[in-house]
Amino acid sequence: MNAAVPKIRMGFVGGGEGAFIAKAHRQAAGLDGRFELVCGAFSRDAENNQNTGAALGLSASRCYSDWRQMIESERALPAGQRMELVVIVTPNHLHAPVASQALSAGFHVFSEKPAALNLAELLALKDVVSRSNRLYGLAHTYLGYPMVWQAREMVRSGVIGAVRKVIVEYPQGWLSQDVAAQGNKQAAWRDLPEQSGVGGCIGDIGTHAFSLAEFVADQPIQHLCAMLGVHIEGRQLDDDASMLFKMADGASGVLIASQVCAGEENPLKIRVYGDKGGLEWRQEEPASLVHRAFDQPLRILRSGVGQPWLCEAASQRMRLPAGHPEGYLEAMANLYGDFASAIRGEVTGHDAPGVPGINIGLRGMAFIETVIANHRGDSKWTELVCTP
Amino acid sequence: MNAAVPKIRMGFVGGGEGAFIAKAHRQAAGLDGRFELVCGAFSRDAENNQNTGAALGLSASRCYSDWRQMIESERALPAGQRMELVVIVTPNHLHAPVASQALSAGFHVFSEKPAALNLAELLALKDVVSRSNRLYGLAHTYLGYPMVWQAREMVRSGVIGAVRKVIVEYPQGWLSQDVAAQGNKQAAWRDLPEQSGVGGCIGDIGTHAFSLAEFVADQPIQHLCAMLGVHIEGRQLDDDASMLFKMADGASGVLIASQVCAGEENPLKIRVYGDKGGLEWRQEEPASLVHRAFDQPLRILRSGVGQPWLCEAASQRMRLPAGHPEGYLEAMANLYGDFASAIRGEVTGHDAPGVPGINIGLRGMAFIETVIANHRGDSKWTELVCTP
Amino acid sequence: MNAAVPKIRMGFVGGGEGAFIAKAHRQAAGLDGRFELVCGAFSRDAENNQNTGAALGLSASRCYSDWRQMIESERALPAGQRMELVVIVTPNHLHAPVASQALSAGFHVFSEKPAALNLAELLALKDVVSRSNRLYGLAHTYLGYPMVWQAREMVRSGVIGAVRKVIVEYPQGWLSQDVAAQGNKQAAWRDLPEQSGVGGCIGDIGTHAFSLAEFVADQPIQHLCAMLGVHIEGRQLDDDASMLFKMADGASGVLIASQVCAGEENPLKIRVYGDKGGLEWRQEEPASLVHRAFDQPLRILRSGVGQPWLCEAASQRMRLPAGHPEGYLEAMANLYGDFASAIRGEVTGHDAPGVPGINIGLRGMAFIETVIANHRGDSKWTELVCTP
Amino acid sequence: MNAAVPKIRMGFVGGGEGAFIAKAHRQAAGLDGRFELVCGAFSRDAENNQNTGAALGLSASRCYSDWRQMIESERALPAGQRMELVVIVTPNHLHAPVASQALSAGFHVFSEKPAALNLAELLALKDVVSRSNRLYGLAHTYLGYPMVWQAREMVRSGVIGAVRKVIVEYPQGWLSQDVAAQGNKQAAWRDLPEQSGVGGCIGDIGTHAFSLAEFVADQPIQHLCAMLGVHIEGRQLDDDASMLFKMADGASGVLIASQVCAGEENPLKIRVYGDKGGLEWRQEEPASLVHRAFDQPLRILRSGVGQPWLCEAASQRMRLPAGHPEGYLEAMANLYGDFASAIRGEVTGHDAPGVPGINIGLRGMAFIETVIANHRGDSKWTELVCTP
Repeated sequence: MNAAVPKIRMGFVGGGEGAFIAKAHRQAAGLDGRFELVCGAFSRDAENNQNTGAALGLSASRCYSDWRQMIESERALPAGQRMELVVIVTPNHLHAPVASQALSAGFHVFSEKPAALNLAELLALKDVVSRSNRLYGLAHTYLGYPMVWQAREMVRSGVIGAVRKVIVEYPQGWLSQDVAAQGNKQAAWRDLPEQSGVGGCIGDIGTHAFSLAEFVADQPIQHLCAMLGVHIEGRQLDDDASMLFKMADGASGVLIASQVCAGEENPLKIRVYGDKGGLEWRQEEPASLVHRAFDQPLRILRSGVGQPWLCEAASQRMRLPAGHPEGYLEAMANLYGDFASAIRGEVTGHDAPGVPGINIGLRGMAFIETVIANHRGDSKWTELVCTP
Repeated sequence: MNAAVPKIRMGFVGGGEGAFIAKAHRQAAGLDGRFELVCGAFSRDAENNQNTGAALGLSASRCYSDWRQMIESERALPAGQRMELVVIVTPNHLHAPVASQALSAGFHVFSEKPAALNLAELLALKDVVSRSNRLYGLAHTYLGYPMVWQAREMVRSGVIGAVRKVIVEYPQGWLSQDVAAQGNKQAAWRDLPEQSGVGGCIGDIGTHAFSLAEFVADQPIQHLCAMLGVHIEGRQLDDDASMLFKMADGASGVLIASQVCAGEENPLKIRVYGDKGGLEWRQEEPASLVHRAFDQPLRILRSGVGQPWLCEAASQRMRLPAGHPEGYLEAMANLYGDFASAIRGEVTGHDAPGVPGINIGLRGMAFIETVIANHRGDSKWTELVCTP
Repeated sequence: MNAAVPKIRMGFVGGGEGAFIAKAHRQAAGLDGRFELVCGAFSRDAENNQNTGAALGLSASRCYSDWRQMIESERALPAGQRMELVVIVTPNHLHAPVASQALSAGFHVFSEKPAALNLAELLALKDVVSRSNRLYGLAHTYLGYPMVWQAREMVRSGVIGAVRKVIVEYPQGWLSQDVAAQGNKQAAWRDLPEQSGVGGCIGDIGTHAFSLAEFVADQPIQHLCAMLGVHIEGRQLDDDASMLFKMADGASGVLIASQVCAGEENPLKIRVYGDKGGLEWRQEEPASLVHRAFDQPLRILRSGVGQPWLCEAASQRMRLPAGHPEGYLEAMANLYGDFASAIRGEVTGHDAPGVPGINIGLRGMAFIETVIANHRGDSKWTELVCTP
Repeated sequence: MNAAVPKIRMGFVGGGEGAFIAKAHRQAAGLDGRFELVCGAFSRDAENNQNTGAALGLSASRCYSDWRQMIESERALPAGQRMELVVIVTPNHLHAPVASQALSAGFHVFSEKPAALNLAELLALKDVVSRSNRLYGLAHTYLGYPMVWQAREMVRSGVIGAVRKVIVEYPQGWLSQDVAAQGNKQAAWRDLPEQSGVGGCIGDIGTHAFSLAEFVADQPIQHLCAMLGVHIEGRQLDDDASMLFKMADGASGVLIASQVCAGEENPLKIRVYGDKGGLEWRQEEPASLVHRAFDQPLRILRSGVGQPWLCEAASQRMRLPAGHPEGYLEAMANLYGDFASAIRGEVTGHDAPGVPGINIGLRGMAFIETVIANHRGDSKWTELVCTP
């Protein structure tokens, strides 16, 4: 009595009790019913690890104490039983090691961002991805929002004309106080360069703003001029970043990412202006895309299955009719959905269409390093060099 | 190699290709990973039925051509294998028959609303529920939103004082044109009294507004005075409803439900005013609860894991930190989550706490019949009699 | 050295220190520079009267202790010196007596609403207006907002098709507590039937909602079914009103007016839905008119000089380019501006186009009396009879 | 029969037919009834000049063909008759010459911004102001909004703690096309360096954003790093500006001013974040000030006479109860009101408290020149030197 369309078996590395992002991954993967969790190495803490596995319905035998062991053991299982996909939701420093080993062992990988701790590690990983016959996806979740695709499509099809100005901002407030000192683990590891990498805020959320800007404006950032800040005594990594930038096809813009905008939640927002109109999208109201054009009333394109103004890429990323809010988990589930299609062979090659891959990771890493280099220097502009 | 915490096995009645609400149920059930779909009788159309089952990963043998057969066959399976829960997502006229039979056969039931086609049928079903040893839940999804619970808790704890006025509105626009004639199946069956019941708009969405008002204001509606309308030639059931009402503890109010508010999506909204302040919540921005008090700036209580102003009932219905939008599927998943806890025996009795049950169905049915009776008469007020 | 275009000389009755609405009238009249204040009878309190006049730059001789004396004395002045227009900003019971006498003495009248205390008085006043050769205007200020005119024009020109449903609401919160007992004079006289008339909230703001609904939907209300409430012990007049209504050309609707919606400020709002689309306008964001149509993204028509989508009636009621907020005083100034044009003879007859006149006052009074009659009876519907 | 409190007699230089800002000045001055227009030199075009004067009720004899003649002639009139105040609403290049001469002739001056065409001219003007015994005011209208004062007061009193980050933006869209070539006079003179000065967008609206940032954050900008852009072939002056900046007391920030943000109206906006909370204000919804604090729901402080949370400086800049929108003209009228009080001797010295003066003009000019210098260089940071 086997299922007609078998689910994709996935194993988790990281995501013991208390880690919100790991739970979000599991919920997102569960949303469309194409994945099943079969194993995990959730925590180095044995009790946490076992508890997490049991709560998730795993047998003790597939709740591994170590991710290396998990890869080894699963590889030894029969093909129809072993995991097919490794989801990586650890602190940053493990992303690349786990990914490399998993890919090499024949597993697909879906990793939290960043892909690696630094550029050298990332290039090595990119090499592993290329040589593997497996898929690599990166959880740039905001690129899973349907109205982000709609915005990009409108830019691409010339609705707003040639892009002139891009304003992208991601102001958070949760690091306004020294929450790491108050016991917040998420804040603590993010401030350790050996676990988080060289970027603080610029890595954690600046890269989201960066990839969103390049995705929607449909052109790469080429030069930037940045200012970083640290606002808590003893904090090692930046908690605030602002920059000017110039893009490849003539647009210029501003990027703001901060974790000391006291009281702000998560209002990632992008505005793109061309010579014929402008677009505006905010994560906190993801169903609305504002479109401004000359001599026309402002229009708000709302999401929803069946809305006639939506492009195909946006439509296929929706589940509900207009007016039924979809949110962050649905955006992440869109990445999982596309990844599932790619894994199941509906497409070929190293990339899962619609899923951010290693090259976005590479650009993000180059971005972080360029920002830091520029910040430390006296020159105005630094070129963002990245040849994927 | 069995799972430590086995998932709840569910079977679907209804929900062949194209039915958005059935898909929403499956996604909501999948979100928290506590359910697995094991069988279904999705459509009377054999091909649709088989295709749906296959796409969902079911083997042909558990894809039943008839819901009666499904109940019969599943009952005969071993305890550890057979479904435990029947989810009913058919047109309205089948809700009560399927539920009765499923309960009688020993299965839990989670049903789309309304619970039954009319009051008589509903009372009979209530009797079956009472005699069964099984749980019965009703998908009044809006009661699954966390900030709706927050609002109710603030009313209950006296934050806004004694409730004086309630304004609840649910204006949709999708029946502004004769979409049934244009081939819209959802619109078509909703206008057939034999499939939909005696209420059109008043049954389809008026009951949502009604249950939301009673839930948040925490008191029942006792008298009402209603005006119904039909705006398309040949349409049999009402497509527009407005009413005045008086509640048990002294509040009065207005309820508006319409499907001919051209261009509106799904902006269910409730405002409750007491002698110390007021609350406002809208489904299209479900993360915000507006609180107005005397001599205080307007406050917006935002949802999000860990927000210190949230009551426990609201907090436990959230998955993500502030600023990560959660929506309709998450609200429905909250009902599924509470239902799962009840099924797994963490609570006892016929009701799953947090899940709307047969009595809410009963009040909804009494509401529909009272509205129609009042609308047809010349008297101003009609009492809403309902003794659960 | 006389001015080329002489200003219209106006005298005020009422509006001593502390009366916000009188000050608003003076500011609105001053905005476009077509009026000058030449005299007043501001208060029965002699000191308040003199102080007010002095603060406004009036000489003591034209600061009258009594409105009868003012009319008499001004009449005796030379034509080029005496006032031309009487502005009435007293409590309600003086509106009709002052207006009648002023009109009879040959002065134009611009009166705060209501035009009179009851229907009999109003009909008598209407008679005076008809026999006089003077203009009579009523400060239904909300009808001075440009986007209200835009909405009406869009209804009239068929943009939203035949009107089906109208929802108008005016929820205030300032009478949620017994502010009259706390010394609020505005609240105190409003609760005295001999000064305020038979309607409380229904007269004070219900008539605004009523006239706005008829104005925008462009059809009269014919039948209504109402519920009034009083929420403070000892309060004599209603502080809360809700009603269902039917209009002459087939639309139906809901009107909500309340002064016990705790915490609400002044969010007068109207929604009108037709068979081709819908419109929505809110006083708190008066520059935006939301237009919903089938198969089109939601549009927001913004006000502003030169916006190409605006009708002439709206355009001529604006002063500033888009994005420069105009508000309540500008709306009132629009009434004054049209009144000035009419006084200066650019139009003829008893009505100043664009300025609400005696007939709107008459309908408002009929509305109040019909609401109260219906509220007291057991019949569902009461006809609103009013033959101007 | 003289007025008890005589109005302040003002004369206009500039503001012939079609100039919106001049009309706005007259409306703002008229709002509170403390000024009267007695003369003007509205246009070099004789017919326009005479028409404007006549339409405003001026006699031909005080409608001067030349501003020098106006100053000369008015000076010769009796003290109780001649103008007291010169309002300058010409293109930029005349601001300083007219102001200097008017001050020297003994008149107060209220000038549109900028105070002068360049720094040298401005310093000379400042010298004239210092030596005169007259008042000089600058129409930085946005500093007249009451909630801007509320924001500053909350910063000053420590409500949000030490300021860390300031984001100020002023994106307009009206120069997205070559409207000057299409006959738009406002656009045309703004692009002529000899009439507009060295700054385009940065001078026209960048200075507004700049002065707002310094005013609300209550500290000067010390260093900046800027990027300017020109987006229309043949346009001489910048139409787009973005910059990073550092302030004197440790805050840093971003300033965006653009006139090519296609479709944007006038949404000047400022956000200020400190170590205890944040504030946000937008000109398009000027009645609301958003206040975010730790562990507190978001608060929206609404404007309105009598709101208990308002500081005195904000309260005295309001005219209407909450919920009655006040806008741009009211903000400008606040400057006029404070200027009137100063002229009437209620305060002494060269400054009218509450009215931006020559030093704000000086800083604005230094800002423009610093931005341009930085933009042209390769160094990252340029110090903004300005010693008023």
